[in-house]
Amino acid sequence: MIAAALVFIMHLGFATVESGLTQSKNTVNILFKNTLIPCIGLLTYALCGFNLMYPGFADEDPQFWFKFAGFGITTDEAGVTSAYNVGYTYWTDFLFQAMFAATAATIVSGAVAERVKLGTFLVFSTIFVAVCYPIAGSWKWGNGWLNRLDTPFYDFAGSTLVHSVGGWGALAGVMLLGPRMGKYTSDGKIKPILGHSMPLATIGVFLLWLGWFGFNGGSVLSADPGLVSLTLVTTSLAAAAGGVSAALASVIFLKKPDLSMALNGILAGLVGITAGADQMAADTSIYIGAIAGVLVVLSVLFFDKIKIDDPVGAISVHLVCGIWGTLAVGIFGAKAGTAQLMSQLTGVAAYAVFTFVFAFVLFLILKIVMGLRVSPEEESEGLDIGEHGNVAYPNFIANH
Amino acid sequence: MIAAALVFIMHLGFATVESGLTQSKNTVNILFKNTLIPCIGLLTYALCGFNLMYPGFADEDPQFWFKFAGFGITTDEAGVTSAYNVGYTYWTDFLFQAMFAATAATIVSGAVAERVKLGTFLVFSTIFVAVCYPIAGSWKWGNGWLNRLDTPFYDFAGSTLVHSVGGWGALAGVMLLGPRMGKYTSDGKIKPILGHSMPLATIGVFLLWLGWFGFNGGSVLSADPGLVSLTLVTTSLAAAAGGVSAALASVIFLKKPDLSMALNGILAGLVGITAGADQMAADTSIYIGAIAGVLVVLSVLFFDKIKIDDPVGAISVHLVCGIWGTLAVGIFGAKAGTAQLMSQLTGVAAYAVFTFVFAFVLFLILKIVMGLRVSPEEESEGLDIGEHGNVAYPNFIANH
Amino acid sequence: MIAAALVFIMHLGFATVESGLTQSKNTVNILFKNTLIPCIGLLTYALCGFNLMYPGFADEDPQFWFKFAGFGITTDEAGVTSAYNVGYTYWTDFLFQAMFAATAATIVSGAVAERVKLGTFLVFSTIFVAVCYPIAGSWKWGNGWLNRLDTPFYDFAGSTLVHSVGGWGALAGVMLLGPRMGKYTSDGKIKPILGHSMPLATIGVFLLWLGWFGFNGGSVLSADPGLVSLTLVTTSLAAAAGGVSAALASVIFLKKPDLSMALNGILAGLVGITAGADQMAADTSIYIGAIAGVLVVLSVLFFDKIKIDDPVGAISVHLVCGIWGTLAVGIFGAKAGTAQLMSQLTGVAAYAVFTFVFAFVLFLILKIVMGLRVSPEEESEGLDIGEHGNVAYPNFIANH
Repeated sequence: MIAAALVFIMHLGFATVESGLTQSKNTVNILFKNTLIPCIGLLTYALCGFNLMYPGFADEDPQFWFKFAGFGITTDEAGVTSAYNVGYTYWTDFLFQAMFAATAATIVSGAVAERVKLGTFLVFSTIFVAVCYPIAGSWKWGNGWLNRLDTPFYDFAGSTLVHSVGGWGALAGVMLLGPRMGKYTSDGKIKPILGHSMPLATIGVFLLWLGWFGFNGGSVLSADPGLVSLTLVTTSLAAAAGGVSAALASVIFLKKPDLSMALNGILAGLVGITAGADQMAADTSIYIGAIAGVLVVLSVLFFDKIKIDDPVGAISVHLVCGIWGTLAVGIFGAKAGTAQLMSQLTGVAAYAVFTFVFAFVLFLILKIVMGLRVSPEEESEGLDIGEHGNVAYPNFIANH
Repeated sequence: MIAAALVFIMHLGFATVESGLTQSKNTVNILFKNTLIPCIGLLTYALCGFNLMYPGFADEDPQFWFKFAGFGITTDEAGVTSAYNVGYTYWTDFLFQAMFAATAATIVSGAVAERVKLGTFLVFSTIFVAVCYPIAGSWKWGNGWLNRLDTPFYDFAGSTLVHSVGGWGALAGVMLLGPRMGKYTSDGKIKPILGHSMPLATIGVFLLWLGWFGFNGGSVLSADPGLVSLTLVTTSLAAAAGGVSAALASVIFLKKPDLSMALNGILAGLVGITAGADQMAADTSIYIGAIAGVLVVLSVLFFDKIKIDDPVGAISVHLVCGIWGTLAVGIFGAKAGTAQLMSQLTGVAAYAVFTFVFAFVLFLILKIVMGLRVSPEEESEGLDIGEHGNVAYPNFIANH
Repeated sequence: MIAAALVFIMHLGFATVESGLTQSKNTVNILFKNTLIPCIGLLTYALCGFNLMYPGFADEDPQFWFKFAGFGITTDEAGVTSAYNVGYTYWTDFLFQAMFAATAATIVSGAVAERVKLGTFLVFSTIFVAVCYPIAGSWKWGNGWLNRLDTPFYDFAGSTLVHSVGGWGALAGVMLLGPRMGKYTSDGKIKPILGHSMPLATIGVFLLWLGWFGFNGGSVLSADPGLVSLTLVTTSLAAAAGGVSAALASVIFLKKPDLSMALNGILAGLVGITAGADQMAADTSIYIGAIAGVLVVLSVLFFDKIKIDDPVGAISVHLVCGIWGTLAVGIFGAKAGTAQLMSQLTGVAAYAVFTFVFAFVLFLILKIVMGLRVSPEEESEGLDIGEHGNVAYPNFIANH
């Protein structure tokens, strides 16, 4: 339950990171999205659960919907779910799953920020959270086919199931939306669009790190204290290594120690360790985090080069480092070896195809039906005025 | 104890919500009040406790003062209070009560912001926390008359005892203070005065939501994990439903999805579920929260119409939705029915009369003795300069 | 483990306090330092631990390095450390120690802010965390000589071992750096340089208070709930008393209720109670906190008088109140008396000499080798541009 509270606070972390790393003229819009996403995540999960109780749908099995989605979560007489073979109650599991599902949608939010239509994005999020995430999740956490491979695919707390899933959705959205106006000039230059508040971004990253204690630590809640505390240490060491290595990488590649790179490096380390946080040694965690920190810097530069405009670096952090963390289990994990690595690659590929196609098709349908992108006038003026008729900082003189 | 830490963080939530939703020229003043209120709450409770030890006051009963105030909290040999029939120590109970009492004063703070004199408000808060809150609270939590009705009045974690009490104090203060200059023009128009930082307000609401996990979850701390986790789920679902319904209501009534309404909707849902968080089903929680979310939007519009100027919407959130949540126990609760509803109405009415009259008379006396409102010059220039000789953001050019 | 999460969040508290109390042109620099310090703290501790496993260094004792540093932490077969005679695992202890060590470096960070070279400070921090802190800490927590005095030196959670150690480092740094340009004019005037965001500073202080629940509460984790909750109460009452007394002192000495003084008063109370949080009565905690709150105001004024320029008041909070708290154990503690007071004075003096000399010499060497202070041009323009090529708030017009 404490872990659920910590995972909840991650949504404040996402809200502050994303608003901090974007322009002040879009801040209300980003905060609105990030406030509504956990609300929608909670309600979507609850409403789907309640559907089960209507006659004609599933009379005898109150967990029908979850099974339909492949989750197979059932509760024994004491209300303890089978999904975790520990002392979680059904309700704690519900809070966890809802928060995880909302996380996947939040990742998309950051990448499509500053030009996506609010209504379209909220419809996308609802369907993504209600359909795509649980179907994909069931393959592993619902004891689906990936969990039944000879060497089962392993993803402790969601490098692939949460972060890559969100990352593929983000990539699909950015590809269909195109870059923000003025980001890539006609003569091939990349114009940086700076975030409007580095303190907000820093607050967000620290809150995410804190939340990750719940994310990773909570996944072994009933296990012995030794394992939980080891998980917190591997999580922290990977984050620390990611922050330091990304800062060093920024000195090498950007000539200056860059705060936003260091912050994204911490997130990269956290995403990277998530798949194997329970089975890595302390030194291995440092290697995984350090590699993730370099990867995220290179990835941000690479996506800018190919004109994939991701304002907050969400694709680099969650997709690239999510894949890295998943593969790292096959390289450094308890059962490291070719068999495990092949299983991890299988999982990565399966999630890539399913999630990317799902998100791409869904965004495409919504683009035709509702429109995906705000008008150039609105984008230039800011989505806060256009979508909300309001501004985030009315008492300060803006300098767009 | 974890719950006490979470409830503590609510005071940071209040500080950031209130400063975010008001003008930057009054930010230092609001932060100062919200920083001192929990300090005063803690000390007031402690000093009252220590008074007991002085001879001639109560030699034999170290808990005398609490009894005087009607609380009737006593400890058995093991130091466990009788107020909660669970494993709370006296000290944990003290921290909880002090934090709850300070919450009632903080609610008033938001409504009277941007024109109340600092000294007057701090004197009001101290007396309100030390006298009004514990007397009123004793009627229910001290096993007073409301708890001894045939069908006892029910308020699980303070929809009435904390939130309405604060709300009535806020209403009394606003009525005696009058609206901020320029808010209602002579030709009958309502001029919106926007908050200066939506990120601060958003941070505040998320922290309050987190704190509510402690507020509601902590009130069943020793119960079975199932009940605590159910409470967290009902709390979260009501918050989520309040946020979504207030956002939808803002689209209907204000034509745009309004972030501050969505944020207040979340708080409305939280206040609404507080009275019955331990006995609502998941679907009922959603209904209660959704109705609270609509109520808060209508209430904000209504109070603006009758020129009750409440800068942060505290009366709408805490008083209106506190009453709604209390009545909801009679409508949807475990013992729903006419008898329970009548008890709830009795409680609501009793708290209305006592708290409003107490706060009104106290504010009136202070108005005569100390003055209630700053000068028009100070209000125009900002209370930061007038009361504190300082500004919150000296490095930015203001745009009042 | 929960306590470790709370202590972790203190680093966000330090980051926001320090950036809030300094100028916006140096915000990126301060956030960068405060983000990297906990990362470096974690890695330094981990790397030192791993060094032990290399042959030729210590074949048989995997805890060698800690012993070399005097800590003497060893684990029994179950992985439980001897440093705490409680249910802490080695890993939890590691997280705690790393966070504590990083705290000492963070204290220095605030005092030397706005003019220290980034690289120099990071090298200082790494060595300070890796060498000075553990050697000094071993004297007490590693069962060293101070713990073996006839009346052992007592420091429950680090008034001296963490806060004074950081404070002496801060004093050494400020003495070698000199004041910020323009702070003390040639005609003997003191020009206040205001912090750029009071909400950030307030957020920081509340987070530090929250973190202190973990800091102090966590140090008795396995003890009975009564003792832990007493510790939280003494901690909270001292903080509250410090905030109120510093606010009152600011009215007396500065003529206005000053928010930054009230905030520093809370921190002063927290630092003051830390040495004896487990053995003070509730009333004594209030006295200790109230005295700390007055001390911090007088100390800030005093250091300004002697031209020791400490932008955030770190020396006053952590060093002065750390000493006060340590002595308070000899005055008010369970074994109060001349013997205990002499032991406390011995400890204070020993840490003063060792830490100040260590930090002074280290800073002096770095000053010669790397340079300590940025150029006047860079200081005037801001370290954000100079060190990072970036600014914290590109969308607002600055008013330096």
